[in-house]
Amino acid sequence: MNKYSVAELKEASVEQLKTICENLRSDIYQTVSACGGHLSSNLGAVELTVALHRVFHFPNDKIIFDVGHQCYTHKLLTGRADKFHTLRKEGGLSGFPKREESVYDCYDTGHAGTALSAALGIGKARDLKKEDFNVIALIGDGSFQNGLIYEALNSLKILNTNILIILNDNGMSISPTVGGAHEVLQELKGEQKPLEDIALFERFGLKYMGIVNGNDFEELLPALEEAKERLKSETVLLHVVTKKGQGYPFSENAPMQTHSVGPKVKNKEYSSALGEELSLLAEKNEKIVAVTAAMTDSLGLRTFFERYPTRSFDVGICEEHASVLCAALATQGLKPYYAIYSTFLQRAFDEIIHDICGQDLPVTFCVDRGGATGADGETHQGVFDLSYLSFIPNLTIAVPKNISEFREMLRLSANYMHPLAIRYPREGTEGDTEPFEIGKFEVLHSTMSDIVIFAAGERCLNLAFSLKEKLSERYGKDVSIVNARFLKPLDQGLLISRREKLVVTLEDNVRVGGLGSAIADFYRNSCKKVLTFGYMDKFLPHGEVASLMEKYGLGQEYILEEIIKHASR
Amino acid sequence: MNKYSVAELKEASVEQLKTICENLRSDIYQTVSACGGHLSSNLGAVELTVALHRVFHFPNDKIIFDVGHQCYTHKLLTGRADKFHTLRKEGGLSGFPKREESVYDCYDTGHAGTALSAALGIGKARDLKKEDFNVIALIGDGSFQNGLIYEALNSLKILNTNILIILNDNGMSISPTVGGAHEVLQELKGEQKPLEDIALFERFGLKYMGIVNGNDFEELLPALEEAKERLKSETVLLHVVTKKGQGYPFSENAPMQTHSVGPKVKNKEYSSALGEELSLLAEKNEKIVAVTAAMTDSLGLRTFFERYPTRSFDVGICEEHASVLCAALATQGLKPYYAIYSTFLQRAFDEIIHDICGQDLPVTFCVDRGGATGADGETHQGVFDLSYLSFIPNLTIAVPKNISEFREMLRLSANYMHPLAIRYPREGTEGDTEPFEIGKFEVLHSTMSDIVIFAAGERCLNLAFSLKEKLSERYGKDVSIVNARFLKPLDQGLLISRREKLVVTLEDNVRVGGLGSAIADFYRNSCKKVLTFGYMDKFLPHGEVASLMEKYGLGQEYILEEIIKHASR
Repeated sequence: MNKYSVAELKEASVEQLKTICENLRSDIYQTVSACGGHLSSNLGAVELTVALHRVFHFPNDKIIFDVGHQCYTHKLLTGRADKFHTLRKEGGLSGFPKREESVYDCYDTGHAGTALSAALGIGKARDLKKEDFNVIALIGDGSFQNGLIYEALNSLKILNTNILIILNDNGMSISPTVGGAHEVLQELKGEQKPLEDIALFERFGLKYMGIVNGNDFEELLPALEEAKERLKSETVLLHVVTKKGQGYPFSENAPMQTHSVGPKVKNKEYSSALGEELSLLAEKNEKIVAVTAAMTDSLGLRTFFERYPTRSFDVGICEEHASVLCAALATQGLKPYYAIYSTFLQRAFDEIIHDICGQDLPVTFCVDRGGATGADGETHQGVFDLSYLSFIPNLTIAVPKNISEFREMLRLSANYMHPLAIRYPREGTEGDTEPFEIGKFEVLHSTMSDIVIFAAGERCLNLAFSLKEKLSERYGKDVSIVNARFLKPLDQGLLISRREKLVVTLEDNVRVGGLGSAIADFYRNSCKKVLTFGYMDKFLPHGEVASLMEKYGLGQEYILEEIIKHASR
Repeated sequence: MNKYSVAELKEASVEQLKTICENLRSDIYQTVSACGGHLSSNLGAVELTVALHRVFHFPNDKIIFDVGHQCYTHKLLTGRADKFHTLRKEGGLSGFPKREESVYDCYDTGHAGTALSAALGIGKARDLKKEDFNVIALIGDGSFQNGLIYEALNSLKILNTNILIILNDNGMSISPTVGGAHEVLQELKGEQKPLEDIALFERFGLKYMGIVNGNDFEELLPALEEAKERLKSETVLLHVVTKKGQGYPFSENAPMQTHSVGPKVKNKEYSSALGEELSLLAEKNEKIVAVTAAMTDSLGLRTFFERYPTRSFDVGICEEHASVLCAALATQGLKPYYAIYSTFLQRAFDEIIHDICGQDLPVTFCVDRGGATGADGETHQGVFDLSYLSFIPNLTIAVPKNISEFREMLRLSANYMHPLAIRYPREGTEGDTEPFEIGKFEVLHSTMSDIVIFAAGERCLNLAFSLKEKLSERYGKDVSIVNARFLKPLDQGLLISRREKLVVTLEDNVRVGGLGSAIADFYRNSCKKVLTFGYMDKFLPHGEVASLMEKYGLGQEYILEEIIKHASR
């Protein structure tokens, strides 16, 4: 009982196609309104996706959606309409392409810039296996700023396989697209396309086709047919212009605000605190500059960027370049703040080591969306950062207990002259904090009990306090609770001073390599027993954060049991 | 008593400059012959560097050497000639630019593609601070394949600061340069430069100048003067052609073989075993393909590439793209082997997680130069890999005890359908091995003693055996020794079966996050005492591997002391 049929598409008149698009749009709109998700990017790509399904034959032909913010129509058309109301819900459809979900999804995406490399690999494998199908990479113009795309373009002539690259140009990444590559695309949209702009692409060994209005079947269908024909003998880049938010004026007019529509956050966002504090600090300290990779708004830095335009840099989806830029600015005595989501900071891993920590430079990483992030699933969970940062020399790692402590950490960072990473989740409570020094833990509850819990971050401290309650209710046991707000350096003085025999650690991160490992390592030659809790060795799917914690290693009952088991030994 | 004087350069006639270059060449040649180092790249850049010092005024002006394989002349000219014989020797001059070494080195490099981002950051800081100096990025054509360079090019118009980019085009990275960007550069060297090739650069917001013969002062000096003038109002890219190995015919004719000249390895290289085994496996299994990022020879894959040209891909200095390419090839049932140096694999960290392990694809990473690598220093030590790989879900990590075991691991990998990383040093001994399964340790020496040593890799197993000797000589103690050849999964059965109270771990990796942490974590609720040894939390400078082990955490006497201290408790 699938609402949409590809077979139908193949027969339908353009008028009928338009009706189908209306239905798709309203399904997307209704579902995203209910489940949250990526609205404007998906609304813009409806006609394009329908046209692709009309002209090509999936799953025999393969399509890779770069990032995946445009795959909803594809999901609706490929047997997932009846499940579409479960989008991004636990156990329901993923918001991104997933091979496990459907044979129509041939490659998982989530981070920017992978689609071209992936398409080349699939195309090359096809050639080696002497198979015959078309490979399509659907890539937004935002991703064309990313180095990975360039590396793939550079290898077109090396790999020498024919694929169709569809550049879906809506002039936006999550923020408006910026930089030289963007200006080239803008020019191509002008009255007469400068030949050298076309050449910019064709030098790499492909045929440029465009501009095509991606919201108009009259233009789109013949263009795709032509591209399909050319594809037999060459790689084609089809430059399609679409309107982000197409069909919903409120979204067309506010594509940034409607790029990602989430169930509203219940609490305050750490990102707004970042914008507020950094703006205050920048007033007193003109050395402070802010750098982002195409996510100024989501990171809370819009007002900072408006107040300090000469000291604000959005370099586009270029996480590596942003890191080196920060390192270089710091060599000249400036104080760069690099705000980025935990999962995207993975892209700058080498530069964190090689450029920033290797030169011991005073760059502050504001690592947002740390810990489980929920509905976006595997590719967006921020659960590795404490592990991949903890062993890097010269780096200090801070995890605030609430927003007020986050503000204090930012104030401390202003005079700190080494690399520093402050890691925080999307939302939390303002709370309060006392002044403190870098490397100092905070005892939040102290008793004569034999159990102490070290927890990092607001979520895990809340968990610690609820564990404390349950322990006293059920077992008449009390526990001490410590805010382990610095993973590196550890508060050795405090750790040495603790008398408890049973040490429990809680962190919103994979269990291995973060806070627990550090504290267990510190106590390795003591007679203490250390129980470390964090996420298990699995990729966390999409779902509510609370439920992910419950199911994947930070479940309250499970931890209680473990504590009791070891406490009573 | 410095042999070279920049003041002299400024006055010298072209003839005199040529004489100075001859002296520089012979100093470089003699030192590299004695100390090892990068020969052909440095020989090629002598005139260019001399000309830069003639025209610009360092250290007020700033120059960033991309990668740093061209900085020897710069070191000789900037007060380091008398120390030059200590090049790459412990405590001596670094083979790369180092801010700590000289005010003339403004930015540390070692990995490819960072110079343009760094120059932009330094230029932007200059503008913000209203200072006045020139910023120069000297970049080889090999680095122009790298995504980081493109990300920086893309932000020229965003950052809007004027710098001089010198493209030192010798047609080589470590391997010959490949890909679309390279072909553009080739065309620019042709009779008539296609306008669109020039445009390819200028679209990004710079002025293209070239071609200039970088080994000829008559062309070089006026070009640099002109560039310096233009620099006042725009960013300039000066395309300079140099001859890798210039001045030494044997090096000109074998630039690859003389790119890096090392003291010959005493033992056999793991890389040759990789080439041999992979070629054999590929005969029986046509699904096997090999991927490298511009280092086919150093990785031992030349013969494989020659025997299986259609199944071999050198994509240039594009570590990220190479990873995604492998992931995509694997989705189509192929069996990719991605050979790369440990330190460069850091560049693909996000793709390892997001593309390969996230999709649980059967890609095998052949991680060469694992552990301390010695003379190249901080930026090239492979001492983080066990830590940054150990917490990634779905990834298996193997560390062979010798070359024969490495071969067996490769044979096992052929039928293993999940992500696998095999990590090994440059050189070792062939030795022998019994067949084994994935995840199984090997007991090499078993006694009734109360001490067991788990060691990963040849170096640490050798250390284990020499500790064993010393322990019996000096203290009449015996120890058991286990070859911990899989960091993930651990051999739980064997770990459970061990009766020893004192457990010692040895790994050629930072102490935190690798084998020791994993074994300590496994035993966390036992009554065992676990002593973990690895490198301390510092960036390891250049020096002999043995000496680095001795000084930075793997010193035999230090470990002996620790063992005795804890054994006798």
